[in-house]
Amino acid sequence: MARTDEDIASSTYRIFNYYLEYINQERETIRVLLSPNGDPYFFDKIKQIIDQLFTNKLTELNGHFSDKLPISYSMELSITNLLNIVRHWLNSPDPESPDELAEILMQSRLLAPRDLLVFD
Amino acid sequence: MARTDEDIASSTYRIFNYYLEYINQERETIRVLLSPNGDPYFFDKIKQIIDQLFTNKLTELNGHFSDKLPISYSMELSITNLLNIVRHWLNSPDPESPDELAEILMQSRLLAPRDLLVFD
Repeated sequence: MARTDEDIASSTYRIFNYYLEYINQERETIRVLLSPNGDPYFFDKIKQIIDQLFTNKLTELNGHFSDKLPISYSMELSITNLLNIVRHWLNSPDPESPDELAEILMQSRLLAPRDLLVFD
Repeated sequence: MARTDEDIASSTYRIFNYYLEYINQERETIRVLLSPNGDPYFFDKIKQIIDQLFTNKLTELNGHFSDKLPISYSMELSITNLLNIVRHWLNSPDPESPDELAEILMQSRLLAPRDLLVFD
């Protein structure tokens, strides 16, 4: 079944929300585990789990990686990009709500690094 | 002085190339320092250095962060995105040349996470 961009977006948003609610409940534990004093293997373990979730979801939605970059770089960027935003949120002294972060994550899907800069 | 997109791109490419040549020479040391068995503070130290270089260059080019995301998220993504690509390259068993990686980094500046996926 073909999916519209809207189907994909709302499905993605629901997934972000679901996991962010959980992460928010375990906020302090996950923050510490991801910190330099935490478990040095934790980031990679989470990466593997998200990688698996991501691949399953991509298959379900009839998606695949484009060939704009070598595929292993696309996979790496897709996953670490999400993880870095979540880690940044966990380290924030005055964090957004899980709902607000889900919005930021959704927005970030559509922004290339070049879009984050303005030159006068 | 106003800079064209081309000026900015060629300046960025030269910077990438310069640092990648150096990283390539120290490849094994940097790879180990960034690994789970390495120095848990190394990633953050490099982040701070790149952050400083990035901010200086942005000022020099009359640039600033857009307001499409909260600014601290834009800064985080701009820096970690580069670092993740370089770390992935360092971990690759059959790595691209520094020149090829500079091209990948340049390409990645223009690609949003959504651009890395294709849905049939």
